[in-house]
Amino acid sequence: MSSHGHAPDQGFYAIVPAGGAGTRLWPLSRAARPKFLLQLLGSQRSLIQTTVDRLAPVTDGICVVTGTAHAAAIARQLPSLADDDLFVEPSPRESAAAIGLATAVLARRHPEAVVGSFAADHVVLDDVVFRQVVAEAVATAHEGYLVTVGITPTHPATGFGYVCSGESLDVPDAPSALRVTEFREKPDEETARRYVESGRYRWNAGMFVARAATLMELYERYQPELAAGLSEIAGAWDSATREDVLGEVWSGLPKIAIDYAIAEPAAAEGRVVVVPGSFGWDDIGDFRSVAAMLPEPDDGVRRLGDADVVAEGTSDALVVSSSGRLVALLGLTDVVVVDTPDALLVADRSRAQDVKALVDRLRDTHPELL
Amino acid sequence: MSSHGHAPDQGFYAIVPAGGAGTRLWPLSRAARPKFLLQLLGSQRSLIQTTVDRLAPVTDGICVVTGTAHAAAIARQLPSLADDDLFVEPSPRESAAAIGLATAVLARRHPEAVVGSFAADHVVLDDVVFRQVVAEAVATAHEGYLVTVGITPTHPATGFGYVCSGESLDVPDAPSALRVTEFREKPDEETARRYVESGRYRWNAGMFVARAATLMELYERYQPELAAGLSEIAGAWDSATREDVLGEVWSGLPKIAIDYAIAEPAAAEGRVVVVPGSFGWDDIGDFRSVAAMLPEPDDGVRRLGDADVVAEGTSDALVVSSSGRLVALLGLTDVVVVDTPDALLVADRSRAQDVKALVDRLRDTHPELL
Repeated sequence: MSSHGHAPDQGFYAIVPAGGAGTRLWPLSRAARPKFLLQLLGSQRSLIQTTVDRLAPVTDGICVVTGTAHAAAIARQLPSLADDDLFVEPSPRESAAAIGLATAVLARRHPEAVVGSFAADHVVLDDVVFRQVVAEAVATAHEGYLVTVGITPTHPATGFGYVCSGESLDVPDAPSALRVTEFREKPDEETARRYVESGRYRWNAGMFVARAATLMELYERYQPELAAGLSEIAGAWDSATREDVLGEVWSGLPKIAIDYAIAEPAAAEGRVVVVPGSFGWDDIGDFRSVAAMLPEPDDGVRRLGDADVVAEGTSDALVVSSSGRLVALLGLTDVVVVDTPDALLVADRSRAQDVKALVDRLRDTHPELL
Repeated sequence: MSSHGHAPDQGFYAIVPAGGAGTRLWPLSRAARPKFLLQLLGSQRSLIQTTVDRLAPVTDGICVVTGTAHAAAIARQLPSLADDDLFVEPSPRESAAAIGLATAVLARRHPEAVVGSFAADHVVLDDVVFRQVVAEAVATAHEGYLVTVGITPTHPATGFGYVCSGESLDVPDAPSALRVTEFREKPDEETARRYVESGRYRWNAGMFVARAATLMELYERYQPELAAGLSEIAGAWDSATREDVLGEVWSGLPKIAIDYAIAEPAAAEGRVVVVPGSFGWDDIGDFRSVAAMLPEPDDGVRRLGDADVVAEGTSDALVVSSSGRLVALLGLTDVVVVDTPDALLVADRSRAQDVKALVDRLRDTHPELL
């Protein structure tokens, strides 16, 4: 049953890949406590819970794809998720396999469905605009396109990929849709500035919307080996042989991101469309992004968790703490303090991206802290 | 018995006033764990233990003067201190009363003795030079002067008082002794620079050496009320009425620092002499001083305690920790991190003096952390 104006079989289903530890958010995020399970916005809901909350009103069903380590935590955080809609990957195989698995199964369950993939650990501030954009994306997907969402840049970010648009399309119910000419990797600052000034480049939010059948057809065209494996698994999914077939086929699937595997070659053939959006999006990839999402009190210290902070002469600081300890800051600017029971991080905010490098150094010396 | 070349009654006795919480070293120092009880130099000895270790070889006896709160801790840290040489003040009454009490008692016990007061919480790096300077100070004291030690400045410090010298004296066994023309309070940076350039100003290390009889005579001259009270207490000290007399007289004594009460007026009358010294002295009044006393490893992070630190792109940092937690630093310069079980301080090192102001803000909100 669709409540969104399409025939029943044409329902819209969300796929939520939940992977990645969020290493740049260490020591808050850990292998056992990845970003999508954390409450990063000062609310009592984790990022994956917020993602599902946001998608539920506009979808006819939601699937989550994750690894073996976090299946239990996700099942507990999302009590309304049906067991059969939690796709557990036997081993990490990148986003083309993860999204493709759910798409292949959904294509069998609902042959006329539109699917959309939305990361489990991104933030959207304006749900109303988000829904408008998704509605346009779904309308465009019904025309046979692979649709992505392009976020109107608020600054020349170097931490995101960009999507470049060409001419406007004439899609009913999708007045803003533009054809995509190409995807670009994370640029340097100079290039990012040019992108933003041109007005043609938007942040690639990693959201893809397409008819399930369209997306499977693109897999067959650009990744035939992957498509064949996924098709074999999907054929066994809603049956007693699911685990056997999955265990046999999965580990042989190509390991590749959906951007390289599908989106880029499809864009080169004019089959990708972008719907521009401006709804306060962030992938909160590092503590700088976390800080930007939180209100700044008069004392210059943004807080996450129940941090007890006293600050003097401090500005643009972020304190993340649930230890109950008093955190006293004196004469600091642009600093991040993350206070956890077994590890403390103090970092200059401009180095937020380099937390990953620091964590890499701990792999040998402090594996228990990762 | 003196082992230092003087007649038995002319022995040299050290007075160690142990007071002051060291608020600028919070949250390492607390009211219950003042600076002089802490191991601040990476050794297993506290500052008061190190002070006594340094004085023992050059003295015929050591007294400690402290408040009621820390008598027990001092007695335990200094097992060789005789019970009768631990002077417990009934209430805080500043340094003129504290040093005067011990001096008055020592003057009765050893009428020809020389006494020297040395703070319990200062640092001396070169004990050999320190002993040479003390020997000159004792020789000068035998001539009837009040002798202070002036530290050759290594930089235009604004956190210390200065002592200004005039002409050289002709004291046997004290070739460096100079007459003091005046004492100066902590100067601003410009003034400090002029002081250092002049060559006539040295840091006032707060060390005073004099014949006990000379010092009592100065008390009688400049602080007659204080002298009378101290004399009354001293008369009862080594008797059964000590506690009664102390309890009755002490709280009425004038509350004043020995510098203002005795040293400055005596200098104005030409009775104070400075022996210059250069033995790596510091009052380690704040974390900047603590850092300056510790070696800097290649990773730019000085450590106090068993801090487990990993640092990237960091320089001139100090980490004080005994929590066992990993402390990770990223992209920081001139930062102080003090990690204790119930409070964490992160401060810019240039603001080390302002820790006191921060602690003052906690008196109402977090009295349990002081």
